Amino acid sequence: MGDRYVLGVDIGGTKLIIGAVREDGADLVGTESTWTQAERGADDILERLAAQIRRVADALARERPGAELIGMGVGAPGALDRAKGIVYLAPNLGWRDMPLGARLREIVDVPVALENDANCAVLGECWIGAAQGVRHAIGLTIGTGVGGGIIIDGRLYHGASDCAGEIGHITIDTEGRRCGCGNYGCLEAYASGTAIALRAAEQIESGADSSLVDRVEGNLRAITAQMVYEAAEAGDVLALEVVTETARFLGAGVASLLNIFNPEAVVIVGGVTRAGPRLFVPLDREVRRRAFKPAVAACRIVPGKLLGTAGVWGAAKAFLDQQAHA
Amino acid sequence: MGDRYVLGVDIGGTKLIIGAVREDGADLVGTESTWTQAERGADDILERLAAQIRRVADALARERPGAELIGMGVGAPGALDRAKGIVYLAPNLGWRDMPLGARLREIVDVPVALENDANCAVLGECWIGAAQGVRHAIGLTIGTGVGGGIIIDGRLYHGASDCAGEIGHITIDTEGRRCGCGNYGCLEAYASGTAIALRAAEQIESGADSSLVDRVEGNLRAITAQMVYEAAEAGDVLALEVVTETARFLGAGVASLLNIFNPEAVVIVGGVTRAGPRLFVPLDREVRRRAFKPAVAACRIVPGKLLGTAGVWGAAKAFLDQQAHA
Repeated sequence: MGDRYVLGVDIGGTKLIIGAVREDGADLVGTESTWTQAERGADDILERLAAQIRRVADALARERPGAELIGMGVGAPGALDRAKGIVYLAPNLGWRDMPLGARLREIVDVPVALENDANCAVLGECWIGAAQGVRHAIGLTIGTGVGGGIIIDGRLYHGASDCAGEIGHITIDTEGRRCGCGNYGCLEAYASGTAIALRAAEQIESGADSSLVDRVEGNLRAITAQMVYEAAEAGDVLALEVVTETARFLGAGVASLLNIFNPEAVVIVGGVTRAGPRLFVPLDREVRRRAFKPAVAACRIVPGKLLGTAGVWGAAKAFLDQQAHA
Repeated sequence: MGDRYVLGVDIGGTKLIIGAVREDGADLVGTESTWTQAERGADDILERLAAQIRRVADALARERPGAELIGMGVGAPGALDRAKGIVYLAPNLGWRDMPLGARLREIVDVPVALENDANCAVLGECWIGAAQGVRHAIGLTIGTGVGGGIIIDGRLYHGASDCAGEIGHITIDTEGRRCGCGNYGCLEAYASGTAIALRAAEQIESGADSSLVDRVEGNLRAITAQMVYEAAEAGDVLALEVVTETARFLGAGVASLLNIFNPEAVVIVGGVTRAGPRLFVPLDREVRRRAFKPAVAACRIVPGKLLGTAGVWGAAKAFLDQQAHA
């Protein structure tokens, strides 16, 4: 009898990433990453997913002879029904009422567990990443938007109807920026990658000087958060200011989370961590300034360390946890 | 063998309330309430507590013959170490490093469980009050300050170092009002009883007309939140506006809590509930405007219904829960 493995499937708006994870978290085999290309439609994505899943399963059989595939964990963006295996609404994928669990079982006939993608990334980091072994943790995933996940007693907390953890939609300014969700002043409206790029563009429009202007040949709407981090690294004053401001906004949100949850760790996952100490030093300072001392003392604020594979590890772990508590 | 009872002791900055609660939550006997009078010092409070506890124990023996007293749950304000039974710091009581558990055991020799007072009030409401039987709930206690409690899977959530649940110290405006905790823009700085009275006084100072001026004979610092609720009830336009504004601030905080926790209930406890529908109707509206629809659909926002005894019921329940999970 060989070791037991779980397929971890991370379906993102940008990339599909799949790997086979050993059930003790000590091995990841055959990781495959491709572009999602959501615009090609659901069937196209599912066909490519199927091919990718088969390749990973083949790699597992080849590289770990005798390995047993016991299930599949799938992280998907959007609103989903874990019990039914249905993705109700995933705007980034153009999906509505997608019976994802059933469709994936047609590819490999193993039990499938569905989980929100941000939850998976956070769970991965708490399983074998930056917050390994932590009992209570909050994760923020910062990309196009700001997602989140809540770990309580070592397990994902889902809330009354599976929609807990929308950390990006804490109001940090009651009369603040309009958010994509319709609310005003959400953390996401200030600290998402989209908001970071937008804030840089706005400040340039208001007259600030920046190397970003040349970078995008004057087309300010082409500025990306990634460009802002790179410009900050190269010493661009405006970009540095935007990163510092981002840390302040994030700090207000994270301080609230410390006062509410008193967690052992806050893990920040996503492109924004590339800003490194330029982000984390002022973020720490802002949290210290705002949160209660005992909560600050109990908590470390860390960048995720699994990078691209956090969602794969976490999806596999979500499967294992759902099995264990079924 | 008679029924088993637990003493519930609610030590507040204003009142000491004690009663004997049957372990199934179906009976409360001998409730005693007196003024705390913290200014008379810790020994004085403890002496009066001792007398009160003995009277409640006597009432229990008299009114429920054969009843067995199995323990004592104590709700105390401030920072405390539940395991050691010590109140580290309770500014409202003038206590520091008070070995409350040991002192109370000298009065009645039963096991004692310590718990934060806001946690007790919320736990009481979730045990036999407005949120009875709910699995995940958030409670806000609005009085001098804004406290809170978090119920997850039917039990209090304490966090990494026992200081979770500081719901009053969510930032709702990063550059907003200075809060007593040192931070800026905390919910407490807008929606506590203190803040409600202060906002009314400020608006009168800025020229608004109100019956409150006569009520306090021109001494605006004498306005209390209670007076604001009463004036609103009597149709005072400014007071109504202050209550509506309070609902909006609270709504921003509660919407964040819905997006984070996706709870089945939010229970609001304290004097502010006297404002009734004048508070709860605009509060509901604000939460609907701000929070995610599925989270709104899953949650009801309700006033506590145990009023003065929520803390007593909750303290007793905290004892039972700590025993069950020791």
